[in-house]
Amino acid sequence: MNRTHANRPIGIFDSGIGGLTVLREIARLLPREDLIYLGDTARFPYGSKSSHAIIQCALECARFLMEQQIKMLIIACNTASAHALEMLQETLPVPVVGIIQPGFKVLMETTRSQRVAILATQGTIASNVYQNLIRQHYPMACVFPIACPLFAPLAEEHLFDHPAADLIAAHYLQSLNTANIDAVLLACTHYPLLRNAIQKALPPSVKIVEPAQSCAEQVRSWLTASEMQNLQEQGRHQFLATDHTERFAALAKTFLGREIDLHRIVLQT
Amino acid sequence: MNRTHANRPIGIFDSGIGGLTVLREIARLLPREDLIYLGDTARFPYGSKSSHAIIQCALECARFLMEQQIKMLIIACNTASAHALEMLQETLPVPVVGIIQPGFKVLMETTRSQRVAILATQGTIASNVYQNLIRQHYPMACVFPIACPLFAPLAEEHLFDHPAADLIAAHYLQSLNTANIDAVLLACTHYPLLRNAIQKALPPSVKIVEPAQSCAEQVRSWLTASEMQNLQEQGRHQFLATDHTERFAALAKTFLGREIDLHRIVLQT
Repeated sequence: MNRTHANRPIGIFDSGIGGLTVLREIARLLPREDLIYLGDTARFPYGSKSSHAIIQCALECARFLMEQQIKMLIIACNTASAHALEMLQETLPVPVVGIIQPGFKVLMETTRSQRVAILATQGTIASNVYQNLIRQHYPMACVFPIACPLFAPLAEEHLFDHPAADLIAAHYLQSLNTANIDAVLLACTHYPLLRNAIQKALPPSVKIVEPAQSCAEQVRSWLTASEMQNLQEQGRHQFLATDHTERFAALAKTFLGREIDLHRIVLQT
Repeated sequence: MNRTHANRPIGIFDSGIGGLTVLREIARLLPREDLIYLGDTARFPYGSKSSHAIIQCALECARFLMEQQIKMLIIACNTASAHALEMLQETLPVPVVGIIQPGFKVLMETTRSQRVAILATQGTIASNVYQNLIRQHYPMACVFPIACPLFAPLAEEHLFDHPAADLIAAHYLQSLNTANIDAVLLACTHYPLLRNAIQKALPPSVKIVEPAQSCAEQVRSWLTASEMQNLQEQGRHQFLATDHTERFAALAKTFLGREIDLHRIVLQT
């Protein structure tokens, strides 16, 4: 990898479509970069799979993107970051950025009391990745991890502002009302869409943060430090998925805020 | 296949854990039969996969069960039945029973007006399998197919009796209030768990039916007609899955009504 590789694209993968919220932040902060997004929609969701299965999926996505000559890999999926980041960092010849470290960073910069909650899929919560990271750096912190398996399906059903979303948010978050937290991390790419319902279920003083912007900043730092920025006028974005339905195309619009062409590809297993 | 094979087990497979609702009915009606259940949890859900991928998954599950010397195969998954039943019936040397035909049968035996609704996953609804079957036999019938993607996650979250389940059922089923239907088929193994919420969202005169019992009756008919019943005192049940997590074990209890040992197996691909 050297300066001549600076014009190569950045690869981003996610278990599905939600990672487009991360791509959006990267595109905003780094508009000159070429981006290739791969959503493993054929095997969505990763959240309920075992660690073994998630690692296998992540490896196949990473291999495909490496064949596209990427200069950097971003794992936009919390579950895949939790289980496969280390393995991919050890295996791949390019830098690999997960979504956990950026989420951890913005959460701990936001809290004053070090009493925080993590909202995520069951897979991410069960991996203990955020809990361990926080305890390692902030041994006196108090972490409330909450799995919210219905948030992603609710987001995908466009029921963000439906009363059912409020009831389900209240159901998941009721234990936080007496937890005296001051910050909550949305540790799943789908959850920002439910931000209103989540805020209503929490004491108004609690701040809600998400990792996408912090992740984009980390990418920019690395590109700058290693002089690997693409200097072209305007980056191109390519959108790939392992399965394609009209629903995925519609969801892409919800998450990205604009229409895209989603191309189906086949992964080597 | 002859009478000496009557002591062989019956194989049942599903994309996940929901098919245990079918196993439960079979075990109730045929308590002397040995049953082997295979949940393809590593690749759950089938609903969003392509027809090609679903057929491949179904073939691998069927092959594994054939190696266990089963005398009959039951596809307890609506999506797999919709896409792979015919192929398996043509390929396998044992009878293969799907879940579509039994559902169709009980629904059309229940309706008087031939105005009916089908509640199912997006994959099952998109396959048009129920709609085609009904129109083929009842050309004057009026079918209302409704995809309910949040029902399965709600069931898996044990929120059957939560007000959110009522709101979401009302959201999906509101169009049925003026449809003058008299019967509804729960064409997904998860939906019977939400029966109360679904009933509340429908006019009280509407009857709700499900295929599991009808499927079990079809199995019994075949066993009787071919004199292949197992005559032992009490059948044994074996539970296998392609991925194993604590959550699957907990879900198994919800769907089956009792604790089970779920063993992980690896399918030949």
